[in-house]
Amino acid sequence: MSKRSASIKGQAELLCRLLRLFYDKDWVSGTGGGICAAKDSKTVLMAPTGVHKEEVKPSDLFIVDRSSGAIVRPPKNRALTVSECNPIFCTIMNRRGAGSVMHSHALSSVLAADLAGKHDDLIIEGLEMLKGVRGVSNQAKHAVPVIQNTPRERELLDQIRLMLENSAYAESFCILVRNHGAYIWGEDLWEAKRHAEIYHFLFEAVVARAGQNPNPG
Amino acid sequence: MSKRSASIKGQAELLCRLLRLFYDKDWVSGTGGGICAAKDSKTVLMAPTGVHKEEVKPSDLFIVDRSSGAIVRPPKNRALTVSECNPIFCTIMNRRGAGSVMHSHALSSVLAADLAGKHDDLIIEGLEMLKGVRGVSNQAKHAVPVIQNTPRERELLDQIRLMLENSAYAESFCILVRNHGAYIWGEDLWEAKRHAEIYHFLFEAVVARAGQNPNPG
Amino acid sequence: MSKRSASIKGQAELLCRLLRLFYDKDWVSGTGGGICAAKDSKTVLMAPTGVHKEEVKPSDLFIVDRSSGAIVRPPKNRALTVSECNPIFCTIMNRRGAGSVMHSHALSSVLAADLAGKHDDLIIEGLEMLKGVRGVSNQAKHAVPVIQNTPRERELLDQIRLMLENSAYAESFCILVRNHGAYIWGEDLWEAKRHAEIYHFLFEAVVARAGQNPNPG
Amino acid sequence: MSKRSASIKGQAELLCRLLRLFYDKDWVSGTGGGICAAKDSKTVLMAPTGVHKEEVKPSDLFIVDRSSGAIVRPPKNRALTVSECNPIFCTIMNRRGAGSVMHSHALSSVLAADLAGKHDDLIIEGLEMLKGVRGVSNQAKHAVPVIQNTPRERELLDQIRLMLENSAYAESFCILVRNHGAYIWGEDLWEAKRHAEIYHFLFEAVVARAGQNPNPG
Repeated sequence: MSKRSASIKGQAELLCRLLRLFYDKDWVSGTGGGICAAKDSKTVLMAPTGVHKEEVKPSDLFIVDRSSGAIVRPPKNRALTVSECNPIFCTIMNRRGAGSVMHSHALSSVLAADLAGKHDDLIIEGLEMLKGVRGVSNQAKHAVPVIQNTPRERELLDQIRLMLENSAYAESFCILVRNHGAYIWGEDLWEAKRHAEIYHFLFEAVVARAGQNPNPG
Repeated sequence: MSKRSASIKGQAELLCRLLRLFYDKDWVSGTGGGICAAKDSKTVLMAPTGVHKEEVKPSDLFIVDRSSGAIVRPPKNRALTVSECNPIFCTIMNRRGAGSVMHSHALSSVLAADLAGKHDDLIIEGLEMLKGVRGVSNQAKHAVPVIQNTPRERELLDQIRLMLENSAYAESFCILVRNHGAYIWGEDLWEAKRHAEIYHFLFEAVVARAGQNPNPG
Repeated sequence: MSKRSASIKGQAELLCRLLRLFYDKDWVSGTGGGICAAKDSKTVLMAPTGVHKEEVKPSDLFIVDRSSGAIVRPPKNRALTVSECNPIFCTIMNRRGAGSVMHSHALSSVLAADLAGKHDDLIIEGLEMLKGVRGVSNQAKHAVPVIQNTPRERELLDQIRLMLENSAYAESFCILVRNHGAYIWGEDLWEAKRHAEIYHFLFEAVVARAGQNPNPG
Repeated sequence: MSKRSASIKGQAELLCRLLRLFYDKDWVSGTGGGICAAKDSKTVLMAPTGVHKEEVKPSDLFIVDRSSGAIVRPPKNRALTVSECNPIFCTIMNRRGAGSVMHSHALSSVLAADLAGKHDDLIIEGLEMLKGVRGVSNQAKHAVPVIQNTPRERELLDQIRLMLENSAYAESFCILVRNHGAYIWGEDLWEAKRHAEIYHFLFEAVVARAGQNPNPG
């Protein structure tokens, strides 16, 4: 299913369907979290900020220029504002060649980041589900970078750039943000969904093994 | 979506839809919990008491005078009685300018109140989701007042008035009731929903971090 | 909703709908658990044994004589066998005037029974949701009897009779069975549903407060 | 329901419906896990690998020769590859006379295997739900074999053969794989579903009783 070609309309509908799925999993509750997906090589479909994510319709999506983050076409509803993750989403897409990025506010991602303590990353190992991350084996010690939270979402950008440039994290499709959540990406919406499901499983597993409660939805 | 204007019929349907959502989240099980929403500046739509909340239809709702709590129009089904929360709902709406109040019986709210011990409040901090509470930053030490439970719901009113008047809790859109649950409000049904999702996330987070089980639905 | 009159067809459909609901809550998984409801003053609708409970249709139900437990009318599908709980269901209906009894295999009921240790009952207190049990206040020390499991379901009957006769448990609408589950009843299907939701909430609460994991569905 | 005869079309539709159910239970997330079912005495319906399991349609299924594992008929979509579990599925079907095998990636199965430590099996006892395993009583000390994970799925085959031949595990319809998941089977899709629900309940129960978190959801 990862390789199915999708029309732009299908792409927008799939993006909204995944938002509803993520809401049902408690990853984007309380209007938190978000998602974007490449519309074509130059532009990106992006959800609005501050809205109930499970209510987002294709006509609510922004089209954003992938290199600059500029809004190419806003939705008809002018009360909507583009996701605060806009610069982060574009940076991850450009530097990692990602076709879709999702932003999770799952409690399991917060508790997993807690486990990193003061370290720059969380090492995950001893789990078959690691194989669900593209290129990773179940024998890996998989390092997921963990950054500090900031008052505004866009202020995370400098730390995110550093982590994306750090060769120690070349295999990771995820960045954890302390007290906040995670950014997870893939080559398209379907791989972003798979990676989101894999990483949330890994978060829940390491938290459960550490004796804490991962509180999955 | 928070700013969409809703017809009265739409308002009643949205209120019932949110009750079904809250039921699915285990916040209003066993006929517990409730919700109200302003119909106009003078009257309020209110769910009945003692019924399975996920079964409530628009035609089951009471219309109540906002300042006095008097029933302006009962539903056709005369076996129904208005929510026991009526005086509490009206008090919160009038003193805080709220357009909607929900009452949760979630286990996570009971366990979060447990964490307050004998203190008058629960301090929540170090969580991005605090930004989902209107006016609150993720750097805040957010104080949520916690009151004692009473044999009858209406006997909570004196403690609730005191908490609403207490300037230490001016930023809170939530009052926790020990061994019982929480009252959570917003400017309209959509903000009440957002605040409900945010506060329940915060309850689950503080309980998980304290090593207890937040009992997700 | 508790007092709505239901046609026999409506009664059978409601019974099956509640089985699907209980399945979704993980109370009757793996073909475990069950439910019955009075058809009239002399007969009872009862689900078959050994089938996937969420798949049961009205035409799969048995009609059983309430006083003797004899099958008055089997379903057309002659491969079906009546619930093994038949004698227990009839005993509870007759001795407590119940109109409906449900049998839960929820993990939270097993873990709650664990908390009773070697005692004959589990005392539940300090929870508003106690008010959801008919006649019980939130100030009560509510005693729920706990019996030993037996190799066959029908062998539970002697212990159940003793508990139903014990005045210490006159206020309980629930009997816990160690390592097994719970029987929960009410005046009709709607009250049995309310009591089931209330008692499962109470089980999860006491287990969470004891530091164990209630593992709700 | 276990004995209902199903047309081949009905069989394929049921297999896909169970994949969606297992996905909703978090047993086959992130494209992990799988299922197969006998089409007739010589061939087997098998899901593809590396796809989102809840999206699988009857037309995506492979038909595989039961004794050799050779593909008899691939699906029209030639981008699909047969499940990596193919040799394991066929071996279990042939050696145990199973009509269906499911492969779970549930966190509860990983945590249950953790409990076995270095032992070759996990002993489960003191739970009524043991009766949901064909031929097992609630008085049993039920031994579920636990094997080591390997880099590739097919490398599990030698250990699985040994466990299937080991008379100590003749009563088990499940093999746990450390850090990975479980294989669970039955005489047909309905019994495989029942056994899957039973074993996952047992995993969650032993994990909860050991004080760990079984990750419901």
